[in-house]
Amino acid sequence: MNKIINHDRTAVTVIGLGNMGVALAEAFLKGGHPTTVWNRSANKADGLVAKGAALAATFADAVAASPVVIICLSTYEVMHEQLSPLTDELSGRVLVNLTSGTPDQARNTAIWAAEREVEYLDGAIMAVPQLIGLPETLIFYGGSKTLFEAHAPLLRVFGGNAAYLGDDHGAPLLYDLALLTMLYGSVYGYLHAHAFLSTANISPTAFLPFATNWVNHVIAPSITNPDSARALEERNYATDVSNLNTNKLGLEHIIRASKELDIPAEWLKPLHAIAAQQVAEGYGNDAFERVFEALRKS
Amino acid sequence: MNKIINHDRTAVTVIGLGNMGVALAEAFLKGGHPTTVWNRSANKADGLVAKGAALAATFADAVAASPVVIICLSTYEVMHEQLSPLTDELSGRVLVNLTSGTPDQARNTAIWAAEREVEYLDGAIMAVPQLIGLPETLIFYGGSKTLFEAHAPLLRVFGGNAAYLGDDHGAPLLYDLALLTMLYGSVYGYLHAHAFLSTANISPTAFLPFATNWVNHVIAPSITNPDSARALEERNYATDVSNLNTNKLGLEHIIRASKELDIPAEWLKPLHAIAAQQVAEGYGNDAFERVFEALRKS
Ligand SMILES: NC(=O)c1ccc[n+]([C@@H]2O[C@H](COP(=O)([O-])OP(=O)(O)OC[C@H]3O[C@@H](n4cnc5c(N)ncnc54)[C@H](OP(=O)(O)O)[C@@H]3O)[C@@H](O)[C@H]2O)c1
Ligand SMILES: NC(=O)c1ccc[n+]([C@@H]2O[C@H](COP(=O)([O-])OP(=O)(O)OC[C@H]3O[C@@H](n4cnc5c(N)ncnc54)[C@H](OP(=O)(O)O)[C@@H]3O)[C@@H](O)[C@H]2O)c1
Repeated sequence: MNKIINHDRTAVTVIGLGNMGVALAEAFLKGGHPTTVWNRSANKADGLVAKGAALAATFADAVAASPVVIICLSTYEVMHEQLSPLTDELSGRVLVNLTSGTPDQARNTAIWAAEREVEYLDGAIMAVPQLIGLPETLIFYGGSKTLFEAHAPLLRVFGGNAAYLGDDHGAPLLYDLALLTMLYGSVYGYLHAHAFLSTANISPTAFLPFATNWVNHVIAPSITNPDSARALEERNYATDVSNLNTNKLGLEHIIRASKELDIPAEWLKPLHAIAAQQVAEGYGNDAFERVFEALRKS
Repeated sequence: MNKIINHDRTAVTVIGLGNMGVALAEAFLKGGHPTTVWNRSANKADGLVAKGAALAATFADAVAASPVVIICLSTYEVMHEQLSPLTDELSGRVLVNLTSGTPDQARNTAIWAAEREVEYLDGAIMAVPQLIGLPETLIFYGGSKTLFEAHAPLLRVFGGNAAYLGDDHGAPLLYDLALLTMLYGSVYGYLHAHAFLSTANISPTAFLPFATNWVNHVIAPSITNPDSARALEERNYATDVSNLNTNKLGLEHIIRASKELDIPAEWLKPLHAIAAQQVAEGYGNDAFERVFEALRKS
């Protein structure tokens, strides 16, 4: 792990010592911060205590121990279960919540925090624990700009690419879920591809050169192309390449072939339904991206 | 369009003058082949006739005109509707069918062809019409190896990367659908991402740098990694990075947030159901790729 140079020595607390919380606490210890930790299963603190962390006896003690408290638990529900009995311990603290959840959960937690005079930043870590502490590691933050800027040097201990997204406490998880759904779509498509190929015993390594070429020369360019982003933004669905008619047929071939070959294709039916509806409405010559009209909030 | 050097001057017929068929016929004309064409709407042949193509009066005449017949119609159904009245015209011809459909449609057409002493290759074009004729353009072929090799120089007029996949006439469309479903998963994930972002008025161009970084550094490597392909092949689902528990929760966040923000997420429910089932079966610490077990043919 690269050591990020940081002369801020704020005392910090890390709550939640799962895979991610341990990595966060270790980054603080490497950065020279007085670090208090807490976890439901106390034994997960052993390695950190050996490296100089203080183990708090209770959740309340952990919060009370430091001006800045980082929370990284499995869910918001778990976090609020722990937080709700607290009263005086909270007031005046800075809470940085890196627990995954929904944008509304983050927004509601920000309201909850404001009512208790807790300064609150929400964040979303776009990396696995192994990457915590690297200069390129991306973590999104949302909340007060002043608050973010005051603590940015501290937060960069976790990842050099600390991206502030604005006042909206829901923005980090919104960006997080946007990137995650991109990943699930891509990986599921890849696994569905291999389900097709498995029907003829074509192995993943045999297919790899085609998949790689396709990802690098077709998929990645189509998603990362600034002209495509601009067209989507302007709701400009003109195309001379691949229209809804063609794509509706393509989806029908995939769904029909899946049935013939006895592999699942349920996941593509909502997309096909949108394409079919838009073709029926007379948009067959528009770009496939018109399906976005049925997904977006207007 | 690059002119591919080709000293074979076989007379050829192209049937179907949609966007793709026109591009195929043009490639033959550029290659100096005596080219006969046919299309239901005859006017689509005008440009080709001006460039030297012969327009056949009927489908049967078009087939009879050349030893090699290329078919590129909208569907297999349309193709068989045209082919079924024919008898003697067919015998001894080489039919190269580049119409999209399902692997079983291709396999059944191969049987149909064998019964009529038609030599049959099935193919799938992995490119838009604008790319026909380029050296890197990928077209899959399946059928007799001798037949493919005898006509490979001719077929390379359409695309330099003519990939022979073996005896199975269904293989080209199997590979085609595999690549297409990868594309749909990726593009739909991208559009779902923008549906999320639209709820907070975050524009596609504003998000582009994050999407691009994510595609290049997370998505593409996770799909094109030879170790991942090998693990999938060996059904080895060990992981120290991202397990089913974590991904089940991630999918739940996406589905729940979509509901809160009033955007659709139906497409991810089949994937979540598999993940939830496997977690319930005790596989929570396995890699997310274990969902493939519920998709593949064993
Ligand atoms: N791991 C990653 O790659 C990654 C990446 C980005 C974001 N994240 C997010 O970071 C957060 C933590 O992830 P992780 O990987 O560290 O998860 P994890 O290893 O499963 O750890 C979960 C943590 O939550 C605690 N917890 C669960 N239920 C609890 C309860 N009822 N009461 C008290 N504590 C409870 C666990 O305590 P015990 O030890 O006592 O069970 C543990 O500290 C999640 O929101 C995750 O989505 C993780
Ligand atoms: N365009 C691409 O980017 C692309 C890429 C790869 C593969 N393909 C595949 O290539 C094939 C043709 O695609 P395309 O883009 O050329 O499609 P297209 O522009 O829609 O052309 C469709 C062709 O099918 C004919 N046709 C449709 N219904 C018919 C009927 N009932 N009887 C007789 N002819 C009929 C049309 O004749 P009319 O002109 O009389 O309507 C036209 O020749 C499809 O299978 C497609 O999936 C296309």
